[in-house]
Amino acid sequence: MCQLLGMNCNTPTDITFSFEGFSQRGGKTDHHGDGWGIAFFEDNCARLFLDHRPAVDSAMANFIKQYPLRSLNVIAHIRKATKGDISLRNCHPFQRELWGQTWVFAHNGNLENFEPDLDGSYLPIGETDSERAFCLIMQVLRQTFGACIKKSRPSIGEIVKTIEPLIRSISTYGTFNMLLSNGEAMYCFCATELHSIVRQHPFDTAHLSDCDMSLDFSTVTGENDRVALIATRPLTDNEIWQKHRCGEFRVFVSGQTLLSR
Amino acid sequence: MCQLLGMNCNTPTDITFSFEGFSQRGGKTDHHGDGWGIAFFEDNCARLFLDHRPAVDSAMANFIKQYPLRSLNVIAHIRKATKGDISLRNCHPFQRELWGQTWVFAHNGNLENFEPDLDGSYLPIGETDSERAFCLIMQVLRQTFGACIKKSRPSIGEIVKTIEPLIRSISTYGTFNMLLSNGEAMYCFCATELHSIVRQHPFDTAHLSDCDMSLDFSTVTGENDRVALIATRPLTDNEIWQKHRCGEFRVFVSGQTLLSR
Repeated sequence: MCQLLGMNCNTPTDITFSFEGFSQRGGKTDHHGDGWGIAFFEDNCARLFLDHRPAVDSAMANFIKQYPLRSLNVIAHIRKATKGDISLRNCHPFQRELWGQTWVFAHNGNLENFEPDLDGSYLPIGETDSERAFCLIMQVLRQTFGACIKKSRPSIGEIVKTIEPLIRSISTYGTFNMLLSNGEAMYCFCATELHSIVRQHPFDTAHLSDCDMSLDFSTVTGENDRVALIATRPLTDNEIWQKHRCGEFRVFVSGQTLLSR
Repeated sequence: MCQLLGMNCNTPTDITFSFEGFSQRGGKTDHHGDGWGIAFFEDNCARLFLDHRPAVDSAMANFIKQYPLRSLNVIAHIRKATKGDISLRNCHPFQRELWGQTWVFAHNGNLENFEPDLDGSYLPIGETDSERAFCLIMQVLRQTFGACIKKSRPSIGEIVKTIEPLIRSISTYGTFNMLLSNGEAMYCFCATELHSIVRQHPFDTAHLSDCDMSLDFSTVTGENDRVALIATRPLTDNEIWQKHRCGEFRVFVSGQTLLSR
């Protein structure tokens, strides 16, 4: 199994504090030492950093912790390999382009006997069940709305109508906690375990669960900032994280829940 | 205009020495200060680092210079913006997936009135003429060989038959020096300016043109290593680089020229 971290905000925000705690689970406070990755959206494209080394020892992860990239949407993942060997091509998050936007996806869990009929619109580069699921989601979005609609992309509501039933059907093959974003919204599905918190004014000090580090957010935020963090397990030990229900599909936009069901 | 750097080898090789010299042109020894990027292939996938800051001041470029990623195929680019603003989505190299492989592309030059008929298989994320050209190349490869052929991908010869005439037709719209790779071969087209060198046994010391730095390759290579470097302009001042002919299409595999015409 793996662990997920997502961030969705109304103002470009630096995730280094949360990533510091999260990356400890990549070999130190937890056993997810088979690679990691993090994607930072900038408008409709993303910077994606991947490494097949444990996050806790990775020179690249250390660099990112010190490099405050501000983003409205971030997806990070640390991997405990179950399907597919330990290599770059099997590291999450995965990315593909659709409608002139980068889409990014990460998965926690295992799918059994999941061999969807992929038409070649998107094919997996690695061997994970996760990337197959992502390719299927992208393929169905393309089939449903057409390929060449850069100027009239579907709304978030229309996307939800298509992907929610699909994600629920994929989740019947096993455990399918997942995060998906195109830089406009963060689509989350909780099969078994996902937590979130929305930080907003008045901001307070948070203390990481995985290492002894605190940050007073009131010193680094503006009054109108709103930041939703989504993680497999809470990242801080002095804040109240909301546990998502098993089977809950939730969409975050601008740092708040747009819909949940 | 921009500058290109490519590497194609028969054994995974560290490009930090060449990248050190190349990145000086991103704002110091030359004026290509509008972003940069570098893609390192690992099998059929690639790590891609992009930044819209000048390469010479970029913390990420400094990190990469100290982080010896070994790869068989590398494509790097430094940008002098002509079409599209200075932002991440307009930084080269660009990447897309086809047949379960990552394809990476970078371009030096300008295309005028180049508005290909893209069917949505691949759409540009940014606004550059370069990314439009890349999307067209990928679309034509997909149309020609089919989308879902992960297990029987076309040979390098078959790929060349499809892309060479296409690239020549794109180059009629302006200046189209380019590098393209899927991790198996490096496809190069020289419209106006491209140089290359093949380093092999007996290895010697090379001195960079853009900063006072030398490396004795005999200390870091094996007898059978072979490394082709391709660059807009020679990177070293004590080696003989071969100037590609204007209109020359050349393919490198395993550190040597497979075909040139």
